[in-house]
Amino acid sequence: TRRGVPEAILADGKTPDEAATLAAAAVKSTGRAILTRADDTHVDAVVDTLNEEVTFHRDDRARTLVAHAPDFDPPTRDATVGIVTGGTSDAEAAGEASVILEEMGATVTRVEDVGVAHLGRVIDHLDTLRAADVLVVAAGREGALPTVVAGLVDTPVIGLPVSTGYGHGGSGKAALEGMLQSCTVISVVNIDAGFVAGAQAGLIARAISDARTGNDQAD
Amino acid sequence: TRRGVPEAILADGKTPDEAATLAAAAVKSTGRAILTRADDTHVDAVVDTLNEEVTFHRDDRARTLVAHAPDFDPPTRDATVGIVTGGTSDAEAAGEASVILEEMGATVTRVEDVGVAHLGRVIDHLDTLRAADVLVVAAGREGALPTVVAGLVDTPVIGLPVSTGYGHGGSGKAALEGMLQSCTVISVVNIDAGFVAGAQAGLIARAISDARTGNDQAD
Amino acid sequence: TRRGVPEAILADGKTPDEAATLAAAAVKSTGRAILTRADDTHVDAVVDTLNEEVTFHRDDRARTLVAHAPDFDPPTRDATVGIVTGGTSDAEAAGEASVILEEMGATVTRVEDVGVAHLGRVIDHLDTLRAADVLVVAAGREGALPTVVAGLVDTPVIGLPVSTGYGHGGSGKAALEGMLQSCTVISVVNIDAGFVAGAQAGLIARAISDARTGNDQAD
Amino acid sequence: TRRGVPEAILADGKTPDEAATLAAAAVKSTGRAILTRADDTHVDAVVDTLNEEVTFHRDDRARTLVAHAPDFDPPTRDATVGIVTGGTSDAEAAGEASVILEEMGATVTRVEDVGVAHLGRVIDHLDTLRAADVLVVAAGREGALPTVVAGLVDTPVIGLPVSTGYGHGGSGKAALEGMLQSCTVISVVNIDAGFVAGAQAGLIARAISDARTGNDQAD
Amino acid sequence: TRRGVPEAILADGKTPDEAATLAAAAVKSTGRAILTRADDTHVDAVVDTLNEEVTFHRDDRARTLVAHAPDFDPPTRDATVGIVTGGTSDAEAAGEASVILEEMGATVTRVEDVGVAHLGRVIDHLDTLRAADVLVVAAGREGALPTVVAGLVDTPVIGLPVSTGYGHGGSGKAALEGMLQSCTVISVVNIDAGFVAGAQAGLIARAISDARTGNDQAD
Amino acid sequence: TRRGVPEAILADGKTPDEAATLAAAAVKSTGRAILTRADDTHVDAVVDTLNEEVTFHRDDRARTLVAHAPDFDPPTRDATVGIVTGGTSDAEAAGEASVILEEMGATVTRVEDVGVAHLGRVIDHLDTLRAADVLVVAAGREGALPTVVAGLVDTPVIGLPVSTGYGHGGSGKAALEGMLQSCTVISVVNIDAGFVAGAQAGLIARAISDARTGNDQAD
Amino acid sequence: TRRGVPEAILADGKTPDEAATLAAAAVKSTGRAILTRADDTHVDAVVDTLNEEVTFHRDDRARTLVAHAPDFDPPTRDATVGIVTGGTSDAEAAGEASVILEEMGATVTRVEDVGVAHLGRVIDHLDTLRAADVLVVAAGREGALPTVVAGLVDTPVIGLPVSTGYGHGGSGKAALEGMLQSCTVISVVNIDAGFVAGAQAGLIARAISDARTGNDQAD
Amino acid sequence: TRRGVPEAILADGKTPDEAATLAAAAVKSTGRAILTRADDTHVDAVVDTLNEEVTFHRDDRARTLVAHAPDFDPPTRDATVGIVTGGTSDAEAAGEASVILEEMGATVTRVEDVGVAHLGRVIDHLDTLRAADVLVVAAGREGALPTVVAGLVDTPVIGLPVSTGYGHGGSGKAALEGMLQSCTVISVVNIDAGFVAGAQAGLIARAISDARTGNDQAD
Ligand SMILES: Nc1ncnc2c1ncn2[C@@H]1O[C@H](COP(=O)(O)O)[C@@H](O)[C@H]1O
Ligand SMILES: Nc1ncnc2c1ncn2[C@@H]1O[C@H](COP(=O)(O)O)[C@@H](O)[C@H]1O
Ligand SMILES: Nc1ncnc2c1ncn2[C@@H]1O[C@H](COP(=O)(O)O)[C@@H](O)[C@H]1O
Ligand SMILES: Nc1ncnc2c1ncn2[C@@H]1O[C@H](COP(=O)(O)O)[C@@H](O)[C@H]1O
Ligand SMILES: [Mg+2]
Ligand SMILES: [Mg+2]
Ligand SMILES: [Mg+2]
Ligand SMILES: [Mg+2]
Ligand SMILES: [Mg+2]
Ligand SMILES: [Mg+2]
Ligand SMILES: [Mg+2]
Ligand SMILES: [Mg+2]
Repeated sequence: TRRGVPEAILADGKTPDEAATLAAAAVKSTGRAILTRADDTHVDAVVDTLNEEVTFHRDDRARTLVAHAPDFDPPTRDATVGIVTGGTSDAEAAGEASVILEEMGATVTRVEDVGVAHLGRVIDHLDTLRAADVLVVAAGREGALPTVVAGLVDTPVIGLPVSTGYGHGGSGKAALEGMLQSCTVISVVNIDAGFVAGAQAGLIARAISDARTGNDQAD
Repeated sequence: TRRGVPEAILADGKTPDEAATLAAAAVKSTGRAILTRADDTHVDAVVDTLNEEVTFHRDDRARTLVAHAPDFDPPTRDATVGIVTGGTSDAEAAGEASVILEEMGATVTRVEDVGVAHLGRVIDHLDTLRAADVLVVAAGREGALPTVVAGLVDTPVIGLPVSTGYGHGGSGKAALEGMLQSCTVISVVNIDAGFVAGAQAGLIARAISDARTGNDQAD
Repeated sequence: TRRGVPEAILADGKTPDEAATLAAAAVKSTGRAILTRADDTHVDAVVDTLNEEVTFHRDDRARTLVAHAPDFDPPTRDATVGIVTGGTSDAEAAGEASVILEEMGATVTRVEDVGVAHLGRVIDHLDTLRAADVLVVAAGREGALPTVVAGLVDTPVIGLPVSTGYGHGGSGKAALEGMLQSCTVISVVNIDAGFVAGAQAGLIARAISDARTGNDQAD
Repeated sequence: TRRGVPEAILADGKTPDEAATLAAAAVKSTGRAILTRADDTHVDAVVDTLNEEVTFHRDDRARTLVAHAPDFDPPTRDATVGIVTGGTSDAEAAGEASVILEEMGATVTRVEDVGVAHLGRVIDHLDTLRAADVLVVAAGREGALPTVVAGLVDTPVIGLPVSTGYGHGGSGKAALEGMLQSCTVISVVNIDAGFVAGAQAGLIARAISDARTGNDQAD
Repeated sequence: TRRGVPEAILADGKTPDEAATLAAAAVKSTGRAILTRADDTHVDAVVDTLNEEVTFHRDDRARTLVAHAPDFDPPTRDATVGIVTGGTSDAEAAGEASVILEEMGATVTRVEDVGVAHLGRVIDHLDTLRAADVLVVAAGREGALPTVVAGLVDTPVIGLPVSTGYGHGGSGKAALEGMLQSCTVISVVNIDAGFVAGAQAGLIARAISDARTGNDQAD
Repeated sequence: TRRGVPEAILADGKTPDEAATLAAAAVKSTGRAILTRADDTHVDAVVDTLNEEVTFHRDDRARTLVAHAPDFDPPTRDATVGIVTGGTSDAEAAGEASVILEEMGATVTRVEDVGVAHLGRVIDHLDTLRAADVLVVAAGREGALPTVVAGLVDTPVIGLPVSTGYGHGGSGKAALEGMLQSCTVISVVNIDAGFVAGAQAGLIARAISDARTGNDQAD
Repeated sequence: TRRGVPEAILADGKTPDEAATLAAAAVKSTGRAILTRADDTHVDAVVDTLNEEVTFHRDDRARTLVAHAPDFDPPTRDATVGIVTGGTSDAEAAGEASVILEEMGATVTRVEDVGVAHLGRVIDHLDTLRAADVLVVAAGREGALPTVVAGLVDTPVIGLPVSTGYGHGGSGKAALEGMLQSCTVISVVNIDAGFVAGAQAGLIARAISDARTGNDQAD
Repeated sequence: TRRGVPEAILADGKTPDEAATLAAAAVKSTGRAILTRADDTHVDAVVDTLNEEVTFHRDDRARTLVAHAPDFDPPTRDATVGIVTGGTSDAEAAGEASVILEEMGATVTRVEDVGVAHLGRVIDHLDTLRAADVLVVAAGREGALPTVVAGLVDTPVIGLPVSTGYGHGGSGKAALEGMLQSCTVISVVNIDAGFVAGAQAGLIARAISDARTGNDQAD
């Protein structure tokens, strides 16, 4: 495993057995296993397979499962990442980002249901948005939220397009294109790639934390 | 010509001669000719061909040319259409909409350079936006402006995507998709279709004007 | 809720529980809940959750469910919207438009099964089409119906492409493109976006009604 | 050369010299050369190269050049093909079809400028349309004309999409898709493939002519 | 119903009840009902609903059901249509074409499993191919068969792309594009549109038959 | 202007006059003007228009022009950004990123011509790559370089796809898709968006610099 | 059957009965049947249908079934093909390639789980990679592995894109495009076309084997 | 330079100066320079820059320029590659393949103008086709030629799609898709990638030659 980003097992497309075997190997070698896009059959198989002293954290909405060995020593970073969503359908991708960030030791703050059609709600959270070191902004349909948010802060913003919407530009296509076309400065990840958005924010948070604690290049 | 929408001659793709012949025919039969996407060679040919008593109005930015016969009696409507743009590259499409609306007799108000990355500017014009009977909102790149505007008013909004932006979703693709995916209520026209946006707004303005003046179904 | 367009809950993609919770909240705060793309499990959950005095209207073909609190006071508008369909597969999208229009207080007239391959049927309904203040025209496959209708009336026409057809241009793609390319003046909404087409027609109808009743800018 | 369809030289993308060499070879071996998409440099080179007794027919709008050797004996068929266009921008593709049909010996009748937004004009030509043995119907933008025409006749209709229109579905894309999605019975050729549409109509006309003259399978 | 092409009911996407109601109406008004893309539930519903004197013909591979009233008088044409397929996966689309052609009174000859990778098999059937008045050639994957066949005959060929193949260009996309790009002369229909291919061939066959029997323009 | 990212004028698509007017305004209000995608006519117009005391820096390969007023006080950050390219065709986009980073006060190190087909060259620069606080990695064609680099470092990597390559996936399409599909953790910007990649890296560098110098949230 | 490549039956999309009938015919005529994309119902039907003396080899991961008649005499080639995969999701396509290669008589060596984000693993297998006569390199997501491998060897490399990955460029699209855009020399097959990659490698191996054994052009 | 494939300089998109500098460096380090997609300005600059003892070979149709130092010792292989084209528009891509193969030491045989619509011509060359060790088959439009050829030989075939054709599937898209969908066994390269096709054939030819001469793995 690379120091910065913990390995995660993409359970979707794997059998419960395959997921469990990989999880057991990860716990053995790194003290931790992280499963994304895990359904209940994956969770059951992993819980059955791993020994009893392992601690589990299941997040249903994010569809993640985290397993920690008793002696696992999680990192802590002195940096905050804000995760912003436009609506309830952004919850899964945003949750995935949140879980990976917590595993990377960042402090996570959540700002939810602040769609671009209701600007007042965005503006209400301006202080929270500005207090974060990095922002992950998830949005589906027309995906304008990261642009609007980035126009209001100086913080680096990572756009996370979400596969909502039907018809032309649906399934997150318009959201991804809109973020790539943004007239502000943001970088983006693929549609529904909550893990990547979270991990990239985590790498930035780690760099800031290291700088803040005088620990640069040395972690 | 249909009563509601004046015929326009799409000069682009036609020779100057063809444009002039069609313009002369239009002035003869309806007292007026409207050319869109006309470059200087079209304009010269039309001005040369039509007789001297015709009055011309050339709009360079909108690339339109309007010719009125001396006895042409323009319609007037008791209704206002607001045309909103996000930046200077939206000027051509918005100008095309403006010209056709004026020819349909509507009062046009313009609100310019109010991009979604600078929300303050949008909010500064809220009174103007709310005073209009219909809004045409042009935007390129990520095309979020009509969504943001429609979230602030109760007026019908027509989204006009503009062919700006490069890379994935460029040339107005993201803008069109974003407007079709809008989480508010708007209807849209094709990329750069300023004529169609203006004419549709003009038809709505005419219906409102007729209702306002007790002239329904009778014009 | 914005004054003009009632909020609707897009049930598809939500669990019955989520739909019911959102519906209960909507009834509490606005006296009304509107669910679109609701299947029977959504309907059962909503009906079970809301208290007995609420009145329900389920439209199976449109897949909508409307709930009114006893004291809910629906708006009425002095304006008529015509909804035109080319065939039975357009019924769901057209029905969604119809339900939202009724909730916005417009009078709805339906003209059904008038495909472009049978022009006689369109022409038979010309009086009805011309009597409407606004038209929503739904069409799948090649989507030519709004163009043909708009060529016959002076009324504003909103094109509603429907996801029928297989092969190249199928699932409403050709219909959307054809409407955007229309050689007449129409504005469009996304494929199957009956709610948006209806709501946009409702906003126009409201503006006309206000003008007609001298109630402009004041509702 | 196959008996049914004369070979044509697609000049576009060839140098004037290459076009002239191919034309000379064709005249030598078959008594005839047909160039499509030929600009003036191609025409000049061919005229310069071929000997003086060859008869040329240049069609500027169709961008074709036909050369006949003095002893060339053109076929004649007892069958009529109607070529229908929606607007002036369909003239090149339709002209290409017309030229090839004449070279195949069919009688060609033209019906022009009958767009779907002006149904009256279509209906005015119903007798001409019904008198043809086969119809080639060219249309750009939304491409609905072949569908409307096919709904009014019993004749085989070949749809010829034309590369007009801008924005989404532009350059003939919507027209091709709309024809493939047609709710009537038509077959189609590629965008701007006037040569193919004409030649296919010519093969059908030849089969009908042979049947009519009792000359089946024997030409 | 238009004289030339019998109406067909596209059962797919309709409930068994809807299909049965439409079939009963068709039998009543025209003496015949044709269902395409009908599964067993559609067939059962139609058979149950129609009265006992109706004669049914079910084709499982083509997924069609035809119902004839006792007094139904099928047309007969003096013309032959050849239907050619590249493999077993082309059987459904080709079968649909075959059924509609028989209902239109044409004589149908089938040539099966003659793929372009096995040219010998194509050449073995050259006499059959040349004896037909019109050819419908179905092919999936790279869709080259109609091009190869059209290079060997003078008969009009209609290409019918079939939705086989996976990966890039799969589901009939490459087949459709290849037929539109064909360097021979063919016209095409949409992917899997066996009904349209058959009906278009039937219209041509009818025109030839009428010419052959001296019955032109008069049927 | 937002504190973090200096405004840049996208010269491409603007007339020299428009560019000069905007540049003069920017120098007046912020002491600086940055033009991207500027050709020589833009540069000439800007240099002619601005007064003599302004200092210019033209970068031909990056196609940028920077103008500083005499009293302009550029920011300095205590952070390093590495810019990596796969080949000479990546130079323009990478240069644009470099210029904006320098204007934002970051130290820039360049690593050039390290393509994925020559892994040795990448590995030779490992120390430089690891010494940077942030990396911008530009790549065209298959766009694999950011993935390979990110697999070797713990630093945040921003992928910058470049519009090279012909055929399927050309013009940067494969590069963008490949970066979005990367099996490592990177975020991306649009094709050729060197300005955005540089500015996003600059925002991260600024955050790290602020943390390093104890100047957090206060600049 | 062509001498070089054994015919295979693509079971997916066929009924168990159809698969069994085709398999029985293949065993009868060639002594062997190979099924690809076969699920358990296909396998059961084939095993039930074929007589008892046939030997079966089922590969679950590759989803293949091979049946050999007792007297079947498999070819042997004096050539080695290496099959390289980036991860477990490449196993099915790679397995399909492996099975067909073994049936063609080549020696197969497998190198597994060597992704581009972990270059060390690739380099560890350099000797094995260089010892092969031909390489098939399977990769999903960004598909960079064949490019990296081809940069390290002189052996012909065939890229096999695999349908993994979600969002933009997912389902193997980015992998295919990346391989076509590769800045090294490779040829490719379609997404998931393990059969084609294996068979093409087998044809090359056969040519090398024949040259090696002095058996050229004579097998 | 890798032993197998000589480096080539893609002149298109480079200035004449850049091309000349790179060519001079290549001649200096490897005794040879190969330029592809070189126009006359590139050729002039290279010829002017390199010293007089260098030998040049310019191929206008292939748009290549090869420069050999006096002491350059070209490789020779005991293997033959056949290059097959469907028409004159395939000449550039095929020529590029030919030049690179000659530089790799293979014997090249050319078979030209054998389109799938004229099967007789293909069959006339069967002996030549079968005598080659490897075949590169170029084809534009529907791209069926490699499939037809591969059905007739046991030799490995590399499909080279060419950017001909207009409309849907034009510019080589249909050709690439058709080759990827081929129902025979071929591998492919990108559209117009004559260099890659030639180099891949050259690597296979080298492996065969080495085997033939007992020089395996040792060149
Ligand atoms: N800029 C424009 N965009 C879209 N449609 C236009 C435009 N200008 C004119 N039109 C309409 O396009 C049709 C003109 O087509 P044409 O026959 O090509 O001149 C007319 O019905 C016009 O009303
Ligand atoms: N305008 C055209 N569109 C499509 N095919 C054409 C056209 N003109 C000629 N052709 C056909 O294209 C082939 C010519 O290809 P080429 O070898 O490029 O000249 C011949 O088979 C012609 O019959
Ligand atoms: N090369 C570039 N790529 C993307 N955005 C840019 C570029 N150069 C300037 N911009 C941004 O685009 C906007 C300029 O838009 P405009 O109003 O068209 O000049 C500003 O917000 C700039 O910060
Ligand atoms: N997995 C596969 N991918 C691509 N082609 C295959 C595959 N399996 C079999 N084939 C080939 O596809 C053809 C089988 O087509 P079918 O007639 O549908 O069974 C034969 O030519 C096989 O050699
Ligand atoms: Mg959203
Ligand atoms: Mg904008
Ligand atoms: Mg319809
Ligand atoms: Mg048209
Ligand atoms: Mg086939
Ligand atoms: Mg690169
Ligand atoms: Mg991979
Ligand atoms: Mg070809």
